Amino acid sequence: MEVLGTNDVFRCFLFYAVILVLKMFAVAVIVGQMRLRRKAFANPEDAVRHGGLRFHREDPYVERCRRAHLNDVENILPFLFLGAVYSMTRPSPGVARLHFLVFLLARVLHSAAYLLAWRAPTRSGAYILAQVPCVSMAVQILMVVWPYA
Amino acid sequence: MEVLGTNDVFRCFLFYAVILVLKMFAVAVIVGQMRLRRKAFANPEDAVRHGGLRFHREDPYVERCRRAHLNDVENILPFLFLGAVYSMTRPSPGVARLHFLVFLLARVLHSAAYLLAWRAPTRSGAYILAQVPCVSMAVQILMVVWPYA
Amino acid sequence: MEVLGTNDVFRCFLFYAVILVLKMFAVAVIVGQMRLRRKAFANPEDAVRHGGLRFHREDPYVERCRRAHLNDVENILPFLFLGAVYSMTRPSPGVARLHFLVFLLARVLHSAAYLLAWRAPTRSGAYILAQVPCVSMAVQILMVVWPYA
Repeated sequence: MEVLGTNDVFRCFLFYAVILVLKMFAVAVIVGQMRLRRKAFANPEDAVRHGGLRFHREDPYVERCRRAHLNDVENILPFLFLGAVYSMTRPSPGVARLHFLVFLLARVLHSAAYLLAWRAPTRSGAYILAQVPCVSMAVQILMVVWPYA
Repeated sequence: MEVLGTNDVFRCFLFYAVILVLKMFAVAVIVGQMRLRRKAFANPEDAVRHGGLRFHREDPYVERCRRAHLNDVENILPFLFLGAVYSMTRPSPGVARLHFLVFLLARVLHSAAYLLAWRAPTRSGAYILAQVPCVSMAVQILMVVWPYA
Repeated sequence: MEVLGTNDVFRCFLFYAVILVLKMFAVAVIVGQMRLRRKAFANPEDAVRHGGLRFHREDPYVERCRRAHLNDVENILPFLFLGAVYSMTRPSPGVARLHFLVFLLARVLHSAAYLLAWRAPTRSGAYILAQVPCVSMAVQILMVVWPYA
């Protein structure tokens, strides 16, 4: 069977990558649920449907959830690219899994710290921790491809 | 000829994916055009060039267009990843095309509903509809790769 | 050696792509540094840690950096997809490198013009210039894959 190639590191990466995409989608769902619960809508047509134009307003907690989601977009999407390419540079499977696992755990911690407003610098520490495997993968890719630039 | 591999589902995916990227770029162009037409610039240097610092301001319709674009970024970019990987899991070509087509139509409807401020819940319905093939593809990928985690 | 396949155009693309991802990460770091230097935090818990709730505020220069970063997300991430696929359409290596190089230089110019608030229309000119190779790659991909739609 050759579904998704014959590269076990790539398949391992895909597991972590898809879990992270689903985690990102979950934060987006939380944004929507919070808009409904706090009655704070970015669009007047939504406010009208849910009680009136006075609910076309900002809410601090909804904005917090939005920042958490946007931070996911800014960081998880580049990981999808870096991780896929890094998986094809023949890394040690154990080292590769460590990269993916650190990123996953750090981003889950980041979301928890953001949504629950944990004391600083938990959230920014998780952000920095998640960047470590990303920068590591970027450097390792560059070491392979720089002669082709 | 083996341009872009020998996987017809992947080529089919690429058609829908590139159309969606161009659609996303089109919404970005609309944001820029609306800034010029409504004279509402996020940067003072742009305002100065187009009539003066008093045009360094927000405009509700420009903000609406920006939200439409940001929502594309948040949803179309993950689709590019999920769809590419899903195409390599040997799905039925007809079922795969249905995933891509539903996502494309739902995202076009989402943009139209957002930019034209259609009555709720058209836009959020389109958003949810577009998430269905994404979550379906994510689950199908996970079913293949979970033993490699 | 077959690390990262046998496609030199793809390896060339990866060099430019990873440099662009690192450039995008650098702008994100600048956002964080500017929040610390200008004492303007999006989250109250960060403000409390760095001097008090009065620093839970917006700052025009921090907002400028955030817009620069968001524009990177909106444009560099689609390039990662378009460039990877375009590399597999057997383009002329010289023409392909020109696409990647123009995009890289235009995006570096865009960041510089944004962060340093250069006179309009430098920044928007760089944005448009960077879109040229992206649209070109999108059209060339469509020309290969449209029969599979």
